[in-house]
Amino acid sequence: MPGHFSNIADAIHFDAARATKADLARGLTLFAGLNCFEPGQSQHIHAHRGADKFYLVLSGKARMTVGDETLIAEAGTLVWAPAGAPHGVDEALERTVMLVSMGPPPG
Amino acid sequence: MPGHFSNIADAIHFDAARATKADLARGLTLFAGLNCFEPGQSQHIHAHRGADKFYLVLSGKARMTVGDETLIAEAGTLVWAPAGAPHGVDEALERTVMLVSMGPPPG
Repeated sequence: MPGHFSNIADAIHFDAARATKADLARGLTLFAGLNCFEPGQSQHIHAHRGADKFYLVLSGKARMTVGDETLIAEAGTLVWAPAGAPHGVDEALERTVMLVSMGPPPG
Repeated sequence: MPGHFSNIADAIHFDAARATKADLARGLTLFAGLNCFEPGQSQHIHAHRGADKFYLVLSGKARMTVGDETLIAEAGTLVWAPAGAPHGVDEALERTVMLVSMGPPPG
C-alpha cells in the first residue's frame, strides 16, 4: 500500500472461478483485507489459533457460520470469530464484498 | 455483543458535545469499534505503541492525518496507522462514521 491512505474500491475484484482475497494492509499485529464472492461462492469452515478475526459485510448478502450460529449477513453486519472458533462463508447469495480484519495477521 | 453477529447500525451514535466511540467486539488480540463525528469534531493526534490500527470510513468525510500525510478521507477510504505512528482526525467535514480496528486492543 503506497502511504497510509487507500481506497478499498481499488482492491475489489471478482473471479467467476473462485472467491477472491486481497490484502489492504498488513503490520506486525494487524491485518486488513477484502474477500469478494460471486453468488454461490463460499469459504470453507476454518479456524485461526491465537488470532481473533472479524468480517464486516460492505455490500451483498451471504449465509455465514461462526461456531454453532448460522445467519444471513448483509451490508452492515459485523461477524466476530474469536481465536479458535470455526467460521466460514457457507454461500454468497449475492455478489458480496467483505472487509476482513485479523490480529495478528495470517501467514 | 450477543453472539457472533451484530449490526453496526445499532452502535452508531452522535453527540453534539463530542465525538463518540463504541465497542463492537473485543478479543484478546483484536478490537473492532466505531467512531462517530458531527461536522467540526475531531480526534487529537495520538499513537499506540505496539498496536497497529486502521480506520475504514463508512460514511461522511473527514480530514485525517497519519505521520506527515494529511488527506480527505471519505466512504471507502482505509486509513492505516502502524504501531507508533501519530494519527488522528483533524476535522470531520460532514457527519462521519468510521469503523476502527486495532490489534491488540486498546486499554
